[in-house]
Amino acid sequence: MDVIDLLMAHRSIRKFSDEPIDDGTIERIIAAGFAAATSSNLQGTTVIRVRDAETRRRIAELAGGQTYVETAGAFFVWCADLHRSAMACEIGGGAFEPGVTEHFVIATVDCALAAQNAVVAAESLGLGICYIGGIRNDPAQMTELLELPEQVMPLFGLCIGHPAQDPQRKPRLPLTITLKEERYDDSGDRVGIGEYDETMRAYYRERTGGKVDRAWSTDMSALLGKESRPHMRGYLDSQGFRFR
Amino acid sequence: MDVIDLLMAHRSIRKFSDEPIDDGTIERIIAAGFAAATSSNLQGTTVIRVRDAETRRRIAELAGGQTYVETAGAFFVWCADLHRSAMACEIGGGAFEPGVTEHFVIATVDCALAAQNAVVAAESLGLGICYIGGIRNDPAQMTELLELPEQVMPLFGLCIGHPAQDPQRKPRLPLTITLKEERYDDSGDRVGIGEYDETMRAYYRERTGGKVDRAWSTDMSALLGKESRPHMRGYLDSQGFRFR
Repeated sequence: MDVIDLLMAHRSIRKFSDEPIDDGTIERIIAAGFAAATSSNLQGTTVIRVRDAETRRRIAELAGGQTYVETAGAFFVWCADLHRSAMACEIGGGAFEPGVTEHFVIATVDCALAAQNAVVAAESLGLGICYIGGIRNDPAQMTELLELPEQVMPLFGLCIGHPAQDPQRKPRLPLTITLKEERYDDSGDRVGIGEYDETMRAYYRERTGGKVDRAWSTDMSALLGKESRPHMRGYLDSQGFRFR
Repeated sequence: MDVIDLLMAHRSIRKFSDEPIDDGTIERIIAAGFAAATSSNLQGTTVIRVRDAETRRRIAELAGGQTYVETAGAFFVWCADLHRSAMACEIGGGAFEPGVTEHFVIATVDCALAAQNAVVAAESLGLGICYIGGIRNDPAQMTELLELPEQVMPLFGLCIGHPAQDPQRKPRLPLTITLKEERYDDSGDRVGIGEYDETMRAYYRERTGGKVDRAWSTDMSALLGKESRPHMRGYLDSQGFRFR
């Protein structure tokens, strides 16, 4: 399969068969993840594989009842990690400067790049994946469950498993508005969003036999009109990410 | 080529031939980027392609003299973008709540996932890439140059081009410390970092004919012992990312 075709075929899988994935395959997938670029070789990422059924049940619940966290062949929590960096500083004879906003940005980006590489690796083997942003519903509980030290933030979960469904891929915003030339010119964005609203309406209608007919901009209003996860700043402060 | 082999073969390319990349190929690469997962379908990413030679020269300079920003077949600035989301809220009849920490996390992760997919797409076509974190040296200047509105942050640059060098890939931290089981247990991390320090020493010695012999932990001390990019919080505040 052509790699670009593989990337274009991505859709989240939320129903998995109980076929297991062997540990060697998991290690290949995660190693491929860490082969991604990392800012100044910081490697600000730690992956925690959770096998324990009760822990997975708790995480599924914290994530808002996402039961596939329990049933996927493998489940991981991807963490933005500066704790190891702090340890490296100590070993290297330097002081670690905590709470720097830029370091949070580096670790978050590092972690996402590595995870996406792992996702591509998994999908290339015919496996399906689902990111679980819902673990940020209660990061303090996640921190307790996984015994995360300060300077480690649970960024998202990731289910990997053998797909037991074949959902349609979701259309994306047109490149006419997401890929710009030379500067940020948003003069065509309203038209582009209008077109995409229609595309998403058609997508939902088709998937639900006409029952759901919802525009993207309506979804965005519902999502962003409220302060999502208002605990986030306080939680990050308590973990030592102080945004100074 | 096996996809996992492709991912494992990644190394940053900092020297490009002047062979151009046609626009159709660029569009395929960026579309593959946007096919990555996105939190709640937010798609908090905008890519700005910069062709203008003078703008690229300015960006290369702002990034600390990274001349390959000028010479790569194509150069992009990847932005974490909530401006379009705000526009969608307006169209959808809702209010956009600015400055929410969680929304910054969502847009940053979305942007990194999409960029990494684009990187894999480019590398699958035999192209080479280099992320340019150095654009965060002066995000305010970047913002002016690219006319970024509030709620848009230039997260990193990306060079894509035909490689004119074939560097070694850089070793990564051992999975024994970056992939953990069940919980964050760092009891083996000092040993793992020590091993990796030796690995990196050998890597530098080999690349420099013995001239450089530097441990990873030494690099991390130098990197993290100072407040990197201390302007970052103030800049993000001024762009409306207020971390509340």
